[in-house]
Amino acid sequence: MARTAEANQRLREATRAKLLESARRVFARLGRGATMADVAAEAQVSQGLAYRHFASKEELFQTLLEQVVQADWLLPHVLEMPGTPGERLDFLITTVIESRREQPEFYQLFYQLLIDETLPNDLRELVARQSQEFQSMVRQLIVEGQATGEIAKDNPDQLIAALFACLQGLWSGMAFLHQEHLTKPLPDARIVLRLLKPDSEEKERNL
Amino acid sequence: MARTAEANQRLREATRAKLLESARRVFARLGRGATMADVAAEAQVSQGLAYRHFASKEELFQTLLEQVVQADWLLPHVLEMPGTPGERLDFLITTVIESRREQPEFYQLFYQLLIDETLPNDLRELVARQSQEFQSMVRQLIVEGQATGEIAKDNPDQLIAALFACLQGLWSGMAFLHQEHLTKPLPDARIVLRLLKPDSEEKERNL
Repeated sequence: MARTAEANQRLREATRAKLLESARRVFARLGRGATMADVAAEAQVSQGLAYRHFASKEELFQTLLEQVVQADWLLPHVLEMPGTPGERLDFLITTVIESRREQPEFYQLFYQLLIDETLPNDLRELVARQSQEFQSMVRQLIVEGQATGEIAKDNPDQLIAALFACLQGLWSGMAFLHQEHLTKPLPDARIVLRLLKPDSEEKERNL
Repeated sequence: MARTAEANQRLREATRAKLLESARRVFARLGRGATMADVAAEAQVSQGLAYRHFASKEELFQTLLEQVVQADWLLPHVLEMPGTPGERLDFLITTVIESRREQPEFYQLFYQLLIDETLPNDLRELVARQSQEFQSMVRQLIVEGQATGEIAKDNPDQLIAALFACLQGLWSGMAFLHQEHLTKPLPDARIVLRLLKPDSEEKERNL
């Protein structure tokens, strides 16, 4: 049976997804020195097929970083999610920390690139923009969570300063650590989240 | 009346202290480009007198940094202070954050130097050693505070990882900000300290 155009399209998309998934593992393992041949081998496809999807290793790497940045920092639906503002904020921060805990090598590479200034400018701008959007989203949830009594009634800018200092410290810790120190665990998200929580006296006043 | 040797000694120490205090203000204002003449003018003494106390600007600057590092990170008596472990820990972290809030320009210069790798090696080693001692002291107070129920009963290493990520993020924020952004306030120490506190459910279990 001849393949339909639709089936071909699905196959192309599946191959592209498999290449990206393999590339993530390969770059995490070998760093930026990984080659297109390494990625094709990991995905169990020919190099020719890999090059039909990505013109160069650089294009593949950039697509991968864009994917990470978008999935990770945009988290576009969190403001429309069900649940209270405090629950959505917990979900957001937990997701961000857990993604790094689950793929430490990949994020280590990512943060090292951000420091090394070897990232292409458009990707650097994307990171800055997403970071800004992420911060706005957190701010909105903090203000809403203060109204529901789930978040401490401190100045929101101070809460954001403390929370983002903590996240920045964790990520830069990842970037500066050598590979062998990556076993040093990230703290649980709920410890970081305590920064934002009302203490028991404030909770009682709210009742 | 002729001065006694003791009075001379007191005068020398007072001049030295005045020079260090003036140097701190001058370096904060002018950066490392400040000269011995600037410091002498600020202290209202002659350059000749300044040079009798410090052989060079570099010696003055290094003495100043050593003073900061020791006062700040050693805090040698905190383990023997009166009060509960939780109170001493609050005092320690609050002191560290407040010193930076009160003299942001000076600490900004200090952290920029640490990043720039222009610090002499012996001072860099002093910073690393004090930082290590500071971390040990915090760890001891955390463990003691868990016994008294003042500190959350999480893994102490996770608590330390979260707290030091937060502090590191605050300091590196100071280092990377331009002078004009220094008005961005550091968060109150009590927000940062909430990382370590038991939540209300844990508190009730402890009663």
